[in-house]
Amino acid sequence: MNELDQIQDWLTEVVDISRVFASQGEVAAYIPELLKAPHDTLGICIISPDGQTISAGDVDFELTLQSISKVFTLILALMDLGEAHVFSKVGKEPTGDDFNSMLKLELVEPGIPFNPLINAGAIVISALIQGQSPQHKSERILNFFRLISGNATLEVDEEVFMSEAAHAHRNRSLAYFLKDNGVLTDQDDVEEILEIYFRHCSIKVTCSDMARMALVLANEGVDPASGESLIPRRYVQIAKTFMITCGMYNASGEFAIGVGLPAKSGVSGGILTLVPGKYGIGIVGPALNSKGNSVAGVHLIELLSRRQKWSMF
Amino acid sequence: MNELDQIQDWLTEVVDISRVFASQGEVAAYIPELLKAPHDTLGICIISPDGQTISAGDVDFELTLQSISKVFTLILALMDLGEAHVFSKVGKEPTGDDFNSMLKLELVEPGIPFNPLINAGAIVISALIQGQSPQHKSERILNFFRLISGNATLEVDEEVFMSEAAHAHRNRSLAYFLKDNGVLTDQDDVEEILEIYFRHCSIKVTCSDMARMALVLANEGVDPASGESLIPRRYVQIAKTFMITCGMYNASGEFAIGVGLPAKSGVSGGILTLVPGKYGIGIVGPALNSKGNSVAGVHLIELLSRRQKWSMF
Amino acid sequence: MNELDQIQDWLTEVVDISRVFASQGEVAAYIPELLKAPHDTLGICIISPDGQTISAGDVDFELTLQSISKVFTLILALMDLGEAHVFSKVGKEPTGDDFNSMLKLELVEPGIPFNPLINAGAIVISALIQGQSPQHKSERILNFFRLISGNATLEVDEEVFMSEAAHAHRNRSLAYFLKDNGVLTDQDDVEEILEIYFRHCSIKVTCSDMARMALVLANEGVDPASGESLIPRRYVQIAKTFMITCGMYNASGEFAIGVGLPAKSGVSGGILTLVPGKYGIGIVGPALNSKGNSVAGVHLIELLSRRQKWSMF
Amino acid sequence: MNELDQIQDWLTEVVDISRVFASQGEVAAYIPELLKAPHDTLGICIISPDGQTISAGDVDFELTLQSISKVFTLILALMDLGEAHVFSKVGKEPTGDDFNSMLKLELVEPGIPFNPLINAGAIVISALIQGQSPQHKSERILNFFRLISGNATLEVDEEVFMSEAAHAHRNRSLAYFLKDNGVLTDQDDVEEILEIYFRHCSIKVTCSDMARMALVLANEGVDPASGESLIPRRYVQIAKTFMITCGMYNASGEFAIGVGLPAKSGVSGGILTLVPGKYGIGIVGPALNSKGNSVAGVHLIELLSRRQKWSMF
Repeated sequence: MNELDQIQDWLTEVVDISRVFASQGEVAAYIPELLKAPHDTLGICIISPDGQTISAGDVDFELTLQSISKVFTLILALMDLGEAHVFSKVGKEPTGDDFNSMLKLELVEPGIPFNPLINAGAIVISALIQGQSPQHKSERILNFFRLISGNATLEVDEEVFMSEAAHAHRNRSLAYFLKDNGVLTDQDDVEEILEIYFRHCSIKVTCSDMARMALVLANEGVDPASGESLIPRRYVQIAKTFMITCGMYNASGEFAIGVGLPAKSGVSGGILTLVPGKYGIGIVGPALNSKGNSVAGVHLIELLSRRQKWSMF
Repeated sequence: MNELDQIQDWLTEVVDISRVFASQGEVAAYIPELLKAPHDTLGICIISPDGQTISAGDVDFELTLQSISKVFTLILALMDLGEAHVFSKVGKEPTGDDFNSMLKLELVEPGIPFNPLINAGAIVISALIQGQSPQHKSERILNFFRLISGNATLEVDEEVFMSEAAHAHRNRSLAYFLKDNGVLTDQDDVEEILEIYFRHCSIKVTCSDMARMALVLANEGVDPASGESLIPRRYVQIAKTFMITCGMYNASGEFAIGVGLPAKSGVSGGILTLVPGKYGIGIVGPALNSKGNSVAGVHLIELLSRRQKWSMF
Repeated sequence: MNELDQIQDWLTEVVDISRVFASQGEVAAYIPELLKAPHDTLGICIISPDGQTISAGDVDFELTLQSISKVFTLILALMDLGEAHVFSKVGKEPTGDDFNSMLKLELVEPGIPFNPLINAGAIVISALIQGQSPQHKSERILNFFRLISGNATLEVDEEVFMSEAAHAHRNRSLAYFLKDNGVLTDQDDVEEILEIYFRHCSIKVTCSDMARMALVLANEGVDPASGESLIPRRYVQIAKTFMITCGMYNASGEFAIGVGLPAKSGVSGGILTLVPGKYGIGIVGPALNSKGNSVAGVHLIELLSRRQKWSMF
Repeated sequence: MNELDQIQDWLTEVVDISRVFASQGEVAAYIPELLKAPHDTLGICIISPDGQTISAGDVDFELTLQSISKVFTLILALMDLGEAHVFSKVGKEPTGDDFNSMLKLELVEPGIPFNPLINAGAIVISALIQGQSPQHKSERILNFFRLISGNATLEVDEEVFMSEAAHAHRNRSLAYFLKDNGVLTDQDDVEEILEIYFRHCSIKVTCSDMARMALVLANEGVDPASGESLIPRRYVQIAKTFMITCGMYNASGEFAIGVGLPAKSGVSGGILTLVPGKYGIGIVGPALNSKGNSVAGVHLIELLSRRQKWSMF
């Protein structure tokens, strides 16, 4: 009886315990998909490299990746352009600020975003993705996400993509600020970049898809099924490091101490996390705490990590 | 021999003395008109209500109003909508920040611009100008400026207007930030508002036009020629107060102590100032100090104000 | 029947109308004197150069000057050391910040306080007052205040002075920050400077004393009784300018537009203001608004200034 | 031939290569010990749990721990008071700011320091150390450091401690700011706390002492010699997490991506780092880069970590 077998036995119970914390949170009201499901939706899926999968709760719930997508567009940009180029455009430092703050952009020279996981940084990353047209770039991202998830049917949720547009002003403001600073260039068309950005934020997944994407990171970039290397090991390392230092907005430090796993959350309530060398994990739980992370989801993964001693530290 | 006669005698000398300070400043490189003239261009025109006019230096030099226009669009917005409406959208407080800082917008609740003379505030004012179309709004502004200056030939400098567009990203960023905060509404089209804003910044004048515009403020809103009230007295009062507290960017306090007159400067090197009840004054001097004010122009008006004891304080 | 005679007729009525606004405010709880009087205490005294005095409301109420004292220590420092020295240590610009913010100190080079009326600036001014010992410096300040007020019985309220000490940590923090930046020097003893500072904040007055102090400023530094010049005219000018741009904390701009008179407020609920060339005015009203100014007092002076057209603008 | 044997062969060469980078840095001028040695001092010591030790360069160079001590006072405070108490006083989040910034303290509610490794946080931690007197608290800290380092002769460098006092104003300012916010209480005497703080910053070590201290962390709190548990495993985990997210000032993110090891640096040029489960490492190299970390030391550990694939990620 391996570790996953043992977890399976009480996973439903842990989900039920954690689910009650959802009542402390708020669902992001601007995302239409989230209003269709109960407020206390909670689901988890864990996959090991040999394909063993356990799950509990609302595993069929579909949600869009939102900020979770930023990890994989960063990887794609690194694969397109290399470390030196990418890190001339975004920094490597955590901030203590809200994910969409402009304050830090103003205070810090030379004005590049602190890291690729805050909105300003992720917009810059979207501008770095290569392709002959905005459509081509968006296709390349979607195909990369399909490859990593092993799910060739991933699609952009057009309804969510549309509702992002209604909340785009802050990101548009960030983008023009970046253009003023020269981080985005004269050639970069803000509306095209924002469309690329909102499209990859709106890719729809289940927690099983997220678990599979996380598994590739847990497995050092190698597709566990085919044995093929999908992501260079170094870029997996970079991604995991950012997930520890900046993955959970300005609760990243707290998460690192409480859970100790690389993770990235999204405003739709998803958490993509992993136990290095062992498992990929996807969690859905749309009710968010004040920092923008799934209340019940954080509780669930903390219980699991503490019990299984999964912390990297 | 009245005061202006006395000043006339040594005005050319004071201009020549002040002109040497231009070498300490920099001309705003993005404004094409400014590159056509010598770096040490300096001119002044002073008009009294009875029409007496004295001048010295480069009085024929044409420049665009830039930020100086903000005083008069504020007045027009007040005349269109009244105090209560206008000041629900912009504050009344000086800041210590650069004119285009977003920092303060983020830190202060409820997120309205500090005052109507910083860029963010002036963009909001542009959005408040009434009219059936953006073109109509721009026409209303131009006509108002023609009325106040008594110069029916005032026009937008289309070349300058175009070059503003190449430097619009920061203002675009500010505008979308204001839209995100709800200060600009869903009905406000950012590009249309920025066009209105850049157009009034690009109205071309001479120092004589500025002196005439200032004279209306010095004369409590009354056209000295016709005796007609062009601006309600209360709005003149509001304008003059902002010119003291916020008119010279983040050197307003220093100017108030050194010169003590209501004034507004622009990045093209203009200073529009006035001696309440006595004179309207226009100054041109494109070389700017680090705060964005005309180096030689500030020196010139300080010499005059000190000698003539013009300070309001 | 002169202007003061006319005002006298309805002054009590205006005080009564304004008094009801006190219920919107809060009394500074740490100042013991203020807890002894009704929450809606309100009084005003107006003095003209020829000695005519009118008053209404709680004119015998005693309060400490608090921040109002900063205007006169600035003047004394200017008289001790001159403009060049003083303004190498404090700036001349209004801020949009709270009076005791350290934020701006950090952001602005070279790190001197924005102006002498914010706490950091006033602490620096206290350090500039000349004297052979801290006691001597405090005596010189007290004697100067007695001279300006024409009241040789002014004293420090020792009970208030003591309670300031219990709220000194923020000011102590500011002072050490200034020392770290070199604005205060190695020779400056923080505790001695804070004692000087708290002592002059704790000088006890009535609104009649404040009116008399303001009258000297209204009268360009000349004692209206003796005709003697107590303050050089230039330093009066500087003081009045700061009172317009920075005198009412971060509601100075609003006050300039609504009232248009040089003024300084204190956390004890005092407002010292003046009609240049005409009157000195003292107001007491301990209930404060969110900006730290007397709610009823601001209402009262705004009614008066509007009706009498006293605005400088 | 184990890993350390292999490293030993080229360690001197790597030190020599890295040493040349020292010329890009600056030595902290206020620490007297550092002025006695060459600018390009560089040394490293690596210890494994079985006692094997390798070293190269200036291994006998003595330096004070400075900020490195913060890791161990945090651990001692956790052992004294537990997680819940300690983290009610300091947060868990990295900032993007300078180590001694007050900016973030002002902006963030409820005003507790972001984490225990910035100066404000470490001062709070010093105030939490238990003891009957300041002297007793300092003794407890010194004894704890002796225990962890296995070196009973560790002492405070009194000369360095004295020179800290000459640079204490910023920390004093921070401490009073914390007291104003209530993070430090009325019972906390700022001068006593600062003495405790400066004393533990001034404990003198060699790189071998640091390696031995790091080894206890690498070994999950267990003394490798005696097998005794010196630190509860959970507190080691917390310490290592902070070392990843906040250990290298505002270059922590860059270090995590480039090196990938828990580490803490000090202004004296020390770096204490570790390979979890394997080695404790101490590095000395006083010339600092603009972020406050040893230039040559960072280069050295990055070369080692890359070659040996030591990154945790």
